[in-house]
Amino acid sequence: MEIEVLEGVFDANEIIAGKNRAILDGCGAFMVNVMASPGAGKTSVILKTLEGVAGGLSCAVVEGDIAGKVDSERVAETGVPAIQINTGGSCHLEARQVNTALERLDLEGVDLVLVENVGNLVCPAEFRLGEDCKVMILSVAEGHDKPLKYPLMFSESDVLLVNKIDLLPYTDFDVDGLKDTVRRMNPRVRIFEMSCRTGEGIDRWVDWLKERVEKRAEGT
Amino acid sequence: MEIEVLEGVFDANEIIAGKNRAILDGCGAFMVNVMASPGAGKTSVILKTLEGVAGGLSCAVVEGDIAGKVDSERVAETGVPAIQINTGGSCHLEARQVNTALERLDLEGVDLVLVENVGNLVCPAEFRLGEDCKVMILSVAEGHDKPLKYPLMFSESDVLLVNKIDLLPYTDFDVDGLKDTVRRMNPRVRIFEMSCRTGEGIDRWVDWLKERVEKRAEGT
Repeated sequence: MEIEVLEGVFDANEIIAGKNRAILDGCGAFMVNVMASPGAGKTSVILKTLEGVAGGLSCAVVEGDIAGKVDSERVAETGVPAIQINTGGSCHLEARQVNTALERLDLEGVDLVLVENVGNLVCPAEFRLGEDCKVMILSVAEGHDKPLKYPLMFSESDVLLVNKIDLLPYTDFDVDGLKDTVRRMNPRVRIFEMSCRTGEGIDRWVDWLKERVEKRAEGT
Repeated sequence: MEIEVLEGVFDANEIIAGKNRAILDGCGAFMVNVMASPGAGKTSVILKTLEGVAGGLSCAVVEGDIAGKVDSERVAETGVPAIQINTGGSCHLEARQVNTALERLDLEGVDLVLVENVGNLVCPAEFRLGEDCKVMILSVAEGHDKPLKYPLMFSESDVLLVNKIDLLPYTDFDVDGLKDTVRRMNPRVRIFEMSCRTGEGIDRWVDWLKERVEKRAEGT
């Protein structure tokens, strides 16, 4: 019984994720699903990414949170269109919520849609939103043992951003050990080290993303 | 339909939480449900707490994770009995899993059971385990804006441990602002600042916990 209900939820989500895909394909926009624990730096990464692609790509942001609109307000201050989704208790975004947001946004001319998922290393990995790219952030302060505890998130992500590397001198975080573990679980993952606080390493991630968005626009 | 299913899940959980309560009352043990984001320091807090109460209280630990047994192995090294629960994908512990663990542990003479929940600031707050005390940990690296985004966890917790205060000089974390916000949401919450890395502040939390355990044993 429980399994039937869950299958229903996932099947329904897949159908709406497909609809989101069609909307994005229709307007030529590239969508990134940004996932991480609370406090790993999702909003900061989004703000730094918007800064990095400014002038080149036209963007929109979908902010997912249980409650509140702190994040969409921070994004709106930059002038980029932002929509806040409140899940009202649910620990992850589902395709239908993103669908509502995509319907409300004016996607004419938008190249890049950044979606900030709810802060959680578990369930967001299970719900496809129709994205082109799943990006997860791990903060140095969280520790390098997280892949073994949250394996689905690490194996599902296309990109791992190791954030807050400015804190490396004050922690026991083993960057090389983390990379080895994650690559064994997910050989295709791209890993970028960065600090939103100091700005270090942001350019490498932004350059990679710009190239991906451009390649998609060219249909390659 | 969805609501009915959810009510069923919560009702079933409440019944088993009541059974856990009866088991704990039967043997006079005090149970703490430790909740936090991934990497906030749940296992480190548990290890420091075991160290702090050693000689005075007899303990057992229940470790909840999606996958892996890293945490129960770390605890077992201290000689304290530890049971690992793998939720196999679920993002929170439920009373039935803790029930299985309590049935397997030898609780004769045990004063304190520490339960480490799955790393998640959302769903663990919704499932009562039969505990005496809900403790949440927020790491300084996560940022002081978390109460507004994860309100249920902050309003449900009896104790908030602000961990990793050794990182305060390297972040913009506003401890006083955080305390104000949390106390407005939850006037009865006890807040302790600490660093598992340096040991600062652990004693105040441990003293408070020992007093609570002793008061319960005396039936006051």
